[in-house]
Amino acid sequence: MYKYKLTLAYDGTNYSGWQVQPHATSIQEILEKAIHTITREQVRLIGSGRTDAGVHAMGQVAHCVFEKPIDLEMFFKAMNGILPYDIRLLDIVLAPLDFHAQKSARRKVYHYHLCLQPVVLPFQRLYTSHVREPLCLDLMLRAAQCFVGTHNFTSFANSASEGAAAKNAERTLYRLDLIKTEQGLRLEFEGNGFLYKMVRNIVGMLLEVGGKKRALDDISRLFTAKDRRLAPKAAPARGLFLMEVCYE
Amino acid sequence: MYKYKLTLAYDGTNYSGWQVQPHATSIQEILEKAIHTITREQVRLIGSGRTDAGVHAMGQVAHCVFEKPIDLEMFFKAMNGILPYDIRLLDIVLAPLDFHAQKSARRKVYHYHLCLQPVVLPFQRLYTSHVREPLCLDLMLRAAQCFVGTHNFTSFANSASEGAAAKNAERTLYRLDLIKTEQGLRLEFEGNGFLYKMVRNIVGMLLEVGGKKRALDDISRLFTAKDRRLAPKAAPARGLFLMEVCYE
Repeated sequence: MYKYKLTLAYDGTNYSGWQVQPHATSIQEILEKAIHTITREQVRLIGSGRTDAGVHAMGQVAHCVFEKPIDLEMFFKAMNGILPYDIRLLDIVLAPLDFHAQKSARRKVYHYHLCLQPVVLPFQRLYTSHVREPLCLDLMLRAAQCFVGTHNFTSFANSASEGAAAKNAERTLYRLDLIKTEQGLRLEFEGNGFLYKMVRNIVGMLLEVGGKKRALDDISRLFTAKDRRLAPKAAPARGLFLMEVCYE
Repeated sequence: MYKYKLTLAYDGTNYSGWQVQPHATSIQEILEKAIHTITREQVRLIGSGRTDAGVHAMGQVAHCVFEKPIDLEMFFKAMNGILPYDIRLLDIVLAPLDFHAQKSARRKVYHYHLCLQPVVLPFQRLYTSHVREPLCLDLMLRAAQCFVGTHNFTSFANSASEGAAAKNAERTLYRLDLIKTEQGLRLEFEGNGFLYKMVRNIVGMLLEVGGKKRALDDISRLFTAKDRRLAPKAAPARGLFLMEVCYE
């Protein structure tokens, strides 16, 4: 048995998300088919976590196990030859047999892009979320700081993980930085783990606070309430990028 | 009569190019239809020049003439409401009646993006051209300088303009800068006018010189020969952006 760690980038626009599901084309499925074409092995590719339809990745990590060792250079070229141009293999290395793309992950970095201009440039239409209302940056910065640290994020996790979230929804956000860009803002999230739709729900909250639709101290109230129904709706998928997954 | 100057951005990927033509969807046609929907006026939108299928624009300029004056703010919002997200109206202003988007243009700026990495990121696949061979940057810089100045560019103009080119193919290139980017190079062209496919043909030549497939002094030989058939093939459309059109 040979275990490999793959680093992947993809444009999520044309897919139903990372995970294989019936009646929809997933990124995982496209990758598994390409691997089968090259190696004739029917493997299951385990990702560091799901990404939803429309969410992008610059550094998704996955692992799979082969019966026979593979020629890394040949495999790398063959994969990028077979894969559609919106999915790319960035790296592949041999990994220890106890490596697990999801369970061994220690830290993840997500970026969320906001366009604050009157018009979204055509080239960014699939990679940013358009905010037309004026935002108070100072309020957003203060709201962001409320999320940093260790909290029970139940109110900011969507239903797909509610069962799991109820059990253990405690996560640590190491940083949430707001970086000014040419067209608006880039929100950088770094944490030890993220619940289902957590980043997009936090972005939704930052936008409501920045747009003065909610008060700053609603955030701590929501942490205490542990009730997703009280939180704002999630920000659109297209602004979100999984940038990096870190291991020990 | 009221003449307006429009500044436009578009992703050329899904269109047959700027110019209206039978059996294909052009950017000009989409814009003229949107204008008709809003104003009920059947206008002809005159661009500063054509862009080919797959070529992008960040600052294409066009003009049109209305019988009645328009409310600029209403028109701006309505256009960006109706247009597909890959075509955006960036600006519209009233122009003097003697303004002509093509004939009054004094300078144009084009950018061409090259990716020199082993893998093109999914998000750049439609906006850059992939070069897999190693390039000698020093040779490319010297080749670029050979193009700057006033030359007869017949050898670097494609057939669609051959008739016109034969008559007057003299153009002045003010600058051709090579800027290093995260993924490769951005080639910046600024000149008083460009013949059909001239930028892409010059990029093709720079790549051949940089890849040591042609000698540096082939460039002056080609200027003298005035024969398109001797020049390398054009670089792909997707790397090219019309950035700016300048008027007096």
